[in-house]
Amino acid sequence: MKMSLDCIPCFIRQAADAVRMSASSAEEQKHLMHNILQWMGEIDLNQSPPAASQMIHRRLRSLLTTDDPYRLAKDQHNQLAAALIPSIRQYIKSSADPLIMAVRYAITGNIIDLGAKNKIGYGEIYADLQSASMQPVYGNMDSFKKAVQEAKTILYLADNAGEIFFDRLLIEQLSRVRITMAVRGAPVINDATISDAEAAGISEIADIIDNGSDAPGTILDDCSNEFRLCFKNADMVISKGQGNFESLSEEKREIFFLFRTKCPIISRHSGFCVGTYVAANLSAMPNYSSGAIL
Amino acid sequence: MKMSLDCIPCFIRQAADAVRMSASSAEEQKHLMHNILQWMGEIDLNQSPPAASQMIHRRLRSLLTTDDPYRLAKDQHNQLAAALIPSIRQYIKSSADPLIMAVRYAITGNIIDLGAKNKIGYGEIYADLQSASMQPVYGNMDSFKKAVQEAKTILYLADNAGEIFFDRLLIEQLSRVRITMAVRGAPVINDATISDAEAAGISEIADIIDNGSDAPGTILDDCSNEFRLCFKNADMVISKGQGNFESLSEEKREIFFLFRTKCPIISRHSGFCVGTYVAANLSAMPNYSSGAIL
Repeated sequence: MKMSLDCIPCFIRQAADAVRMSASSAEEQKHLMHNILQWMGEIDLNQSPPAASQMIHRRLRSLLTTDDPYRLAKDQHNQLAAALIPSIRQYIKSSADPLIMAVRYAITGNIIDLGAKNKIGYGEIYADLQSASMQPVYGNMDSFKKAVQEAKTILYLADNAGEIFFDRLLIEQLSRVRITMAVRGAPVINDATISDAEAAGISEIADIIDNGSDAPGTILDDCSNEFRLCFKNADMVISKGQGNFESLSEEKREIFFLFRTKCPIISRHSGFCVGTYVAANLSAMPNYSSGAIL
Repeated sequence: MKMSLDCIPCFIRQAADAVRMSASSAEEQKHLMHNILQWMGEIDLNQSPPAASQMIHRRLRSLLTTDDPYRLAKDQHNQLAAALIPSIRQYIKSSADPLIMAVRYAITGNIIDLGAKNKIGYGEIYADLQSASMQPVYGNMDSFKKAVQEAKTILYLADNAGEIFFDRLLIEQLSRVRITMAVRGAPVINDATISDAEAAGISEIADIIDNGSDAPGTILDDCSNEFRLCFKNADMVISKGQGNFESLSEEKREIFFLFRTKCPIISRHSGFCVGTYVAANLSAMPNYSSGAIL
């Protein structure tokens, strides 16, 4: 999908977040913001949001003294999630339908997204986990379940650090088949990379690959051959998060998208209200539109 | 107060709003956004938010085909408010303390602010009006009441169109004294100008002046001599909204600020949580800080 004018303030907010996390003095922060604003004045506004964001965060990393400004935030979210998942695992196991319950918690984990907003309070995460088990999931869970039952190989596209621990709980429910989890090829925003997959112990239950790209999404042309082969050959693809949806919503192969709708742009593109728990392939999105919404 | 890095995404969002309201084609919208982003790359980030916003909206008006992109939105909010205020006036009159009740509704009206967010749904306004009568007002209402009782002249600084009808209800409660309402000297965002004051019938109960400035706040150095004289000589100054607070919070004379805290920057500067109904002079702000918060 193409970006909207409304994506631009969000990109600028991400830039301000990264600058503040990395630049030491107020003067340096202002200098960096001037630099990124001027540079944004020439950015291609016909790209998908993850493609634009990839360029912006590359630019930021070239200006900042770190190539991973979100590392501390990612570690904190991993630690928080690690502490939470044992009890959630028990709850999932004891529920009437562990697969749908694991889907709910995986989608709940999708709020840990520093692309969509600049702070995720622990209170907000706890509150969402409290209500997770009762959340209606919109889309086509029956098709999702059927695809899980029939698939021999599943490619699971991770989204963010912290969230990846909740993805692990869902993968545990898919474990009769061979799973490969793909993470980003390099740090971008708080998206999960190999180290986050390792922190979540994904290697105990699935293969891990990185997609070879530093986009906060899955831009196939920018991904490695190994990843593209895996994407093409997997019986089922499960895609977590808005960034993966934004970059894969034009793809022809069936993909099950699991995410929380966190902004009006995604809401308009998918047809689901902001805040919805979505587990759907494109055919189950009520108002899917691939055109740009300016 | 000085702006924060967090103000920049909000300015860009305002620019996107104004561009979308005025530019006809998608290509024109993108061209304008590129232009404003590049131009923002050189803006002085040591200004107050209203001073920066003044420059940005001047620039926008020079690029757009209209000098008042928000006129339609302002008319719609005026019409909505005009329909609502007769019943609210009755409710205020019949309440135990009409002055504090009018203050509550005046502050409720302050949500009609297209600087702080890009859409104010009618549902949101109705919902806020439903709960308005029960809202605690933070600050020093006793001092406010005392100042109202003692003042012979009051200068009331209006904020937004639509909201100005609710200001009228408060002015009706102050009507034993001579009131002057000041509006912006030229259109900027959805801030009220002379025509909005006339639409709200302010001239029936108060004098109306414009402040001679096109800033979405009150930057005294940018205001007319007539306004500054009025500001200096008034026994009491009542200032509505965030923009007036942002631009007047360094002033030495006593000012009673009435606003809803609508963003974390104002929350940090005033010491009141986001969403608070504030009626306070600076001495009653729990954590007032005049420094820049980057």
